Amino acid sequence: MRAMTVEPKAIVERYLHTVSTGSADDVAALYAEDATLEDPVGGGEVHIGRQAIAGFYKNTEGVEVETELLSFRSGGHEAAFVFAITVKMGESTMRIEPIEVMTFTGDGKIASMKAYWGPENVTQL
Amino acid sequence: MRAMTVEPKAIVERYLHTVSTGSADDVAALYAEDATLEDPVGGGEVHIGRQAIAGFYKNTEGVEVETELLSFRSGGHEAAFVFAITVKMGESTMRIEPIEVMTFTGDGKIASMKAYWGPENVTQL
Repeated sequence: MRAMTVEPKAIVERYLHTVSTGSADDVAALYAEDATLEDPVGGGEVHIGRQAIAGFYKNTEGVEVETELLSFRSGGHEAAFVFAITVKMGESTMRIEPIEVMTFTGDGKIASMKAYWGPENVTQL
Repeated sequence: MRAMTVEPKAIVERYLHTVSTGSADDVAALYAEDATLEDPVGGGEVHIGRQAIAGFYKNTEGVEVETELLSFRSGGHEAAFVFAITVKMGESTMRIEPIEVMTFTGDGKIASMKAYWGPENVTQL
């Protein structure tokens, strides 16, 4: 397997930073053109392609979001990590702690993302 | 998607219990006949089929192993979880904290397992 030009951990840190500070298009730009996104896994919908992925992130555009990487593992062109995402909407603040699994292209784009979480991983703050 | 006959969390708990108390064949019996196992991800080897999987677990047969589920997420026929595995060999004890991702068959067998960890997740105790 060829070495990647970007370290998986650097990609994940940039992704979490962009989720909290960037636009939906900024986040989608981190994905490969033909990438796939499933969030939550088992939710019944897989978003295919960068345009569909941008549409997914538009759902939280304009919402105050903070992210924190809690635990990171990687191997080859893949990574699995636990993180916290805090979403503030008006008076309501909730914190979700998903486990995400990503695969990457050789040039450091996200080729696939799967987010594992359910209602039991959501805390109202 | 059809509901599973066994809860993913119950399968994972049984798996971790069997890894610490059972034989290699006992662990392999939790997998589907045509299951796949990659441990660690990116390590270059994917074990295909229950017999190859039993061979993988024979590596730690006779070694004192303890496991602890630290964090669990699931969706559909899939699960992702963080756990600790403590391996005692003679005077040496080490603790590894992988993130594993599993998919399941409808009747509650493990269809695939991928373990994400590296040397940085190993602690000598």
